[in-house]
Amino acid sequence: MFKECLENVKKNQPLVHNITNYVTVNDVANVLLACGGSPIMSDDQEDVEDITSICGGLNINIGTLNRNTIPSMFLAGKKANSLGHKVLLDPVGAGASGLRTRTANDLLKEVRFDVIRGNISEIRTLIDGSGTTKGVDADLADAVTEENLEETVAKLKAFSKSIGSVIAVTGAIDLVTNAEKCFVIRNGRPEMGRITGTGCQLSGLMTAYITANPANVLEAAAAAVCLMGLAGEIGYDNLQPGEGNSTYRNRIIDAIYNMDGETLEKGANYMVL
Amino acid sequence: MFKECLENVKKNQPLVHNITNYVTVNDVANVLLACGGSPIMSDDQEDVEDITSICGGLNINIGTLNRNTIPSMFLAGKKANSLGHKVLLDPVGAGASGLRTRTANDLLKEVRFDVIRGNISEIRTLIDGSGTTKGVDADLADAVTEENLEETVAKLKAFSKSIGSVIAVTGAIDLVTNAEKCFVIRNGRPEMGRITGTGCQLSGLMTAYITANPANVLEAAAAAVCLMGLAGEIGYDNLQPGEGNSTYRNRIIDAIYNMDGETLEKGANYMVL
Amino acid sequence: MFKECLENVKKNQPLVHNITNYVTVNDVANVLLACGGSPIMSDDQEDVEDITSICGGLNINIGTLNRNTIPSMFLAGKKANSLGHKVLLDPVGAGASGLRTRTANDLLKEVRFDVIRGNISEIRTLIDGSGTTKGVDADLADAVTEENLEETVAKLKAFSKSIGSVIAVTGAIDLVTNAEKCFVIRNGRPEMGRITGTGCQLSGLMTAYITANPANVLEAAAAAVCLMGLAGEIGYDNLQPGEGNSTYRNRIIDAIYNMDGETLEKGANYMVL
Repeated sequence: MFKECLENVKKNQPLVHNITNYVTVNDVANVLLACGGSPIMSDDQEDVEDITSICGGLNINIGTLNRNTIPSMFLAGKKANSLGHKVLLDPVGAGASGLRTRTANDLLKEVRFDVIRGNISEIRTLIDGSGTTKGVDADLADAVTEENLEETVAKLKAFSKSIGSVIAVTGAIDLVTNAEKCFVIRNGRPEMGRITGTGCQLSGLMTAYITANPANVLEAAAAAVCLMGLAGEIGYDNLQPGEGNSTYRNRIIDAIYNMDGETLEKGANYMVL
Repeated sequence: MFKECLENVKKNQPLVHNITNYVTVNDVANVLLACGGSPIMSDDQEDVEDITSICGGLNINIGTLNRNTIPSMFLAGKKANSLGHKVLLDPVGAGASGLRTRTANDLLKEVRFDVIRGNISEIRTLIDGSGTTKGVDADLADAVTEENLEETVAKLKAFSKSIGSVIAVTGAIDLVTNAEKCFVIRNGRPEMGRITGTGCQLSGLMTAYITANPANVLEAAAAAVCLMGLAGEIGYDNLQPGEGNSTYRNRIIDAIYNMDGETLEKGANYMVL
Repeated sequence: MFKECLENVKKNQPLVHNITNYVTVNDVANVLLACGGSPIMSDDQEDVEDITSICGGLNINIGTLNRNTIPSMFLAGKKANSLGHKVLLDPVGAGASGLRTRTANDLLKEVRFDVIRGNISEIRTLIDGSGTTKGVDADLADAVTEENLEETVAKLKAFSKSIGSVIAVTGAIDLVTNAEKCFVIRNGRPEMGRITGTGCQLSGLMTAYITANPANVLEAAAAAVCLMGLAGEIGYDNLQPGEGNSTYRNRIIDAIYNMDGETLEKGANYMVL
């Protein structure tokens, strides 16, 4: 199944419009190209509706939101909705500031998202309407563990049901769920947290996957999570002595570039709850 | 001839002012340093005239244009014109949105460009005044091929004559032309299209080349195209098993860093029409 | 002593708020992660006070300042001051434009900085209140040399005394000084100047170091300079044939990632004046 998801991306070369932060935007573009998609970045209010119209998917990431780009997120999101495009939200830092929490909540009200992807603290903020995220990384206290797994999955399924979006929570254990079915994924390496923007990269990747697999959004989102994690494992194995997080970043994107469907299918490490 | 162009860049270390997109800006800066130039980025309306005044060349790239940076492009362009600096336009995505097409056309009216560098769809948009570019990549239907080569060259020569700028169209076959003479260049690798921003990098590089070779703009622009393509070939040959587009990006910039005049002269693959 | 500085960063994982330029921001984030810190980027006026409140340190870099981010620098700086956070200024291009010189001078008036880090031309501009920086690199005429070393140190000590900030000047010879004590540092490689943003990276790193070592700001700032320079030496030694500035960038960050306290202590090359 994941094999087909990957091959559909390579075949369809989905054009993805990204309104994303300037910190990790280059890596997001290269990841989209690596997986077989095609990236466009545009964030001006006069530009976003035209650009999103020629794309198949829209990736909204609030990592460095500002007064000029926030209105663009709403304009592009509504336009993409009206055209039936796939739309993903990455609520970076929701819970860490009033502006981020408010913007994420308002986006949820006015735009229909096919997938929301964040860390557990960000998603908890969206569920509760407020939060206390420590920066752009998840709070340890929020972490998904073996002990709270079932409870967390139940909570996420209820949230997915209430808003009608697939929810993807990434961390040591990744959860990708709709109202009924949750993929519990154990790919990846802890060292990926020492690279800036692996979450943003995954959001770009995931938008390409759901755009190229419109009838299987849940599976496509899960495939993207497995791909990113598996690339993290392969990239780690390829590290040479003396290499660190900067080269690791390149090796992960390289592994995505070289991934084929069989390797993904075989390396994906998940169960369904 | 290309040897002298390269050596003039290394000797003169041209300072290049870039108003460019935030997606590929870091690579543009590193490419400028790699070739022997020196980059400055500045895009605020209060800052650009001062900054462009201390530079020798100006590179305007509309890849992530917005309401704040568009007026800066006009201010910097006019200032650079008044000082006799070399000015290049990279009309990223012209044809893909009304704002991009309009901005590129307006820039052509108010600023004199020594070179315009884009893909064939973007250049066609400028020639026709409107277009239907599919995103930031060229439409397949527009591609320069062996069959339409002569016709395309004639069209570009006419356009160059009408606006007085050297026109550089990059793709599988690259064309660099003024009203009379066209370099048809066949360096490069198709895999370069799987890296974000190789076009933006070339525009930065080319601005350094024309700035350091003011009396030979056409040849300098052609030399930059050959350099970028040849670096793409060398970088590709240096790829190790398991490496992909992210490392390829580094290897191309590394190859520019290590390029000398003789290697460029020998590796340049072109004919003149 | 530098060993303890490094270990405090790895232990405390200081959260650093960066208002920085979009050219080198990704590398700044990866350097902060490499050294053991944690980066957050935020530059909107409505966002910066909340974000800086949850951090321990603030890094203000004016490399691509604009009308939206300048007010944010003042808001965040004052908020960080009121909370007793460590604050660093990187006056990129002060002296190269009126806006940059004016903004840097105004920031000095309204915000208390624990450290100011720049090249010698930028620092001279701050001392004199005006300047003629040639772009974002130091003027050769300003360079710190063996001949003018004592005189320069005396001038910097006086400046440090007058504004109450540690002054860090980086170049071929690095100087880190307060009113009484100056570290004269000779780590690093000239080739680091061929990579964009090694100065910006150092400013990020230094903010993490002073945040995790609040009682020893001078020593922590000097440790960060030695670390960056030593990583430049190690990264250079790790370069393979055919590699250039793009890969060198990765190898430097990788070397920071792998640095331990003993290697830093042993490799630091400095004297105290």
